Amino acid sequence: MSNSAAGRLNQTSHILNESIKNDDISLRRSQPSTTSLQALEHPFKVTVIGSGNWGTTIAKVVAENTALNPHLFVSRVDMWVFEEKIDGKNLTEIINEQHENVKYLPDIKLPENLVANPNLIDSVKGADILIFNIPHQFLPRIVSNLKNHVGPHVRAISCLKGFEVGKKGVQLLSSYVTDELGIQCGALSGANLAPEVAKEHWSETTVAYHIPKDFRGEGKDVDHKLLKALFHRPYFHVNVIEDVAGISIAGALKNVVALGCGFVEGLGWGNNAAAAIQRVGLGEIIKFGQMFFPESRVQTYYQESAGVADLITTCSGGRNVRVAKHMAKTGKSALDAEKELLNGQSAQGIITCKEVHEWLETCEMTHEFPLFEAVYQIVYNNVPMKNLPDMIEELECIAD
Amino acid sequence: MSNSAAGRLNQTSHILNESIKNDDISLRRSQPSTTSLQALEHPFKVTVIGSGNWGTTIAKVVAENTALNPHLFVSRVDMWVFEEKIDGKNLTEIINEQHENVKYLPDIKLPENLVANPNLIDSVKGADILIFNIPHQFLPRIVSNLKNHVGPHVRAISCLKGFEVGKKGVQLLSSYVTDELGIQCGALSGANLAPEVAKEHWSETTVAYHIPKDFRGEGKDVDHKLLKALFHRPYFHVNVIEDVAGISIAGALKNVVALGCGFVEGLGWGNNAAAAIQRVGLGEIIKFGQMFFPESRVQTYYQESAGVADLITTCSGGRNVRVAKHMAKTGKSALDAEKELLNGQSAQGIITCKEVHEWLETCEMTHEFPLFEAVYQIVYNNVPMKNLPDMIEELECIAD
Repeated sequence: MSNSAAGRLNQTSHILNESIKNDDISLRRSQPSTTSLQALEHPFKVTVIGSGNWGTTIAKVVAENTALNPHLFVSRVDMWVFEEKIDGKNLTEIINEQHENVKYLPDIKLPENLVANPNLIDSVKGADILIFNIPHQFLPRIVSNLKNHVGPHVRAISCLKGFEVGKKGVQLLSSYVTDELGIQCGALSGANLAPEVAKEHWSETTVAYHIPKDFRGEGKDVDHKLLKALFHRPYFHVNVIEDVAGISIAGALKNVVALGCGFVEGLGWGNNAAAAIQRVGLGEIIKFGQMFFPESRVQTYYQESAGVADLITTCSGGRNVRVAKHMAKTGKSALDAEKELLNGQSAQGIITCKEVHEWLETCEMTHEFPLFEAVYQIVYNNVPMKNLPDMIEELECIAD
Repeated sequence: MSNSAAGRLNQTSHILNESIKNDDISLRRSQPSTTSLQALEHPFKVTVIGSGNWGTTIAKVVAENTALNPHLFVSRVDMWVFEEKIDGKNLTEIINEQHENVKYLPDIKLPENLVANPNLIDSVKGADILIFNIPHQFLPRIVSNLKNHVGPHVRAISCLKGFEVGKKGVQLLSSYVTDELGIQCGALSGANLAPEVAKEHWSETTVAYHIPKDFRGEGKDVDHKLLKALFHRPYFHVNVIEDVAGISIAGALKNVVALGCGFVEGLGWGNNAAAAIQRVGLGEIIKFGQMFFPESRVQTYYQESAGVADLITTCSGGRNVRVAKHMAKTGKSALDAEKELLNGQSAQGIITCKEVHEWLETCEMTHEFPLFEAVYQIVYNNVPMKNLPDMIEELECIAD
């Protein structure tokens, strides 16, 4: 009738052994220290494409590691910078002389082996690993410019969050890079507000990379150990997994959930309601992943930094929450709220919830994702946000 | 080499069907509206034991439902109140005359069918359902007083969070009630800050109840539908599940995780770090549950309000976070921080992390729970909290 209190101790070692075998509950890191990595045939050259605050931060992380691990990496890291003038001087020159990105990451000292390069094609010359870290909307043009300048054995990691939804369906940005450039591409995503990582406050991230069929072998190609060596810092803890789809989906859909959080916070409903939105949101993210990317793993969403942790960080602040709160408090439209708060920038959730709605409508599945649908209806069809709880609950409230 | 974008639409209906079959990703509620519940042979009498702010709030919720569902419940709900004088008048008299618990839940109107009763034995007379909602430390005395006054067919729900850890192992509080009184006992837990629920701000909760072997049949005994009818309100959304162990473990261990969050927030490490602590904490909660209560389900922790949502709410505020922050900012001990901030009350995580440490030490398993162990070492052995990241990471940092 009840769970017996006694006798558990005797079961312990058996249960422990079982649990260690059970991957689902193990948080053990599988990547050993680089000290056990053999030296590469030739050290890898790394290029970072993008130099916004997150791009520059990741370039700093990577350049610190390449300098420390000459048996694995060429020390010099090129960072492609969209050239602009700051007080009449080129931004790239300022970065290379002052070792600071005065425009996008001020007051952060950059490693001297990080070289700003205004020439995209030159910056990728001889690169073995490309790290994409540019705004989503620039990706097509950059990738198009890179065509025929990147060999088939180059490997890439995309730090762009998310996916594109078109008539053909949901496409991961990493898959877009692969399709366009013919190179294997993984992703990096996590609970990583750039300014905090730049200041070397402790955080975690997830790198996902699927070992391709043309893998050339340990010591000759990019694998999970090498990616850990490239991105892991004492202040930036990295877990490397296979599930590119899982972390990309979580990275995109969290912004829709954050809008929902902003609505209930703006309505003054408090922490219980915000936590409920995050719970329902996590469930719908998992469902979306399982439905459209059955190869993604449920554990990615609740165990990885790119899953539940990034969701929590995003829902505790940031653009999407701010815009949604402002809508709730003032009754203004999403577009007006964006204009007033974001100075020409956009809250990604506003775009994503529309793309997701259109795709789910094509599949006749909007009813399976009541939170995503509710956020869409509130943003685009003026549905009152106080209806949110009823829209989430599947019409089974007690009649009263 | 990449996830193809095309062709997904054609797979959709197949995947959808599969996913609906897959319990892991389904968030569908299985309990129908009470309108489909048949009338009971005799309506159930409900008694709430406890009248603090959470006790009174739950009594309000329940009394609203008993009044609305006379085919299921006796309208009158007794609430046992530890009698005390307020300005010379008995608290029970004030509650019954003013319909307000002026001491523990001021400014909230209570239903008139909720009757404050200072006599414990009298309050449970004729009760079919007992709801325990008292401070943890009073449970043994209350239960001891109730012995021989509660029939074997009475059913109970415990709103107390957590478990007790002794030399014999980990015992759920619901199991303690069952063992001592010989009655089946479930639990209620969720992201429920009492004042917000009392004000009827929307929130969610989880009720867990395992149908006992001596179940007398639908319409004659407590089952999941009846529990939903008893607790669900338009502002308080209830999901009823079987997994009593899962929600109890999550309800206890979240307080240890909240201490970890308070440490990193107090150190000024920001949102990334707090999210990382919650991610690692959720993982250790799941591992603890699987190890010591293998019957608990992983989904409970990441899908239910009592799991991930309660963790998020607890880590965004409350006593444990406040005490830990104060320790980080002032360098004071946990005991001093408690004294200064909590006016004689205690932060539950301080007690729980010690109980958990002692139990894990008995099992020689402290190394399997690095976050729980780190929190214990910081609170009781003055280990510097800035070591937290290294203590969590399993000594596999890149050597540099």
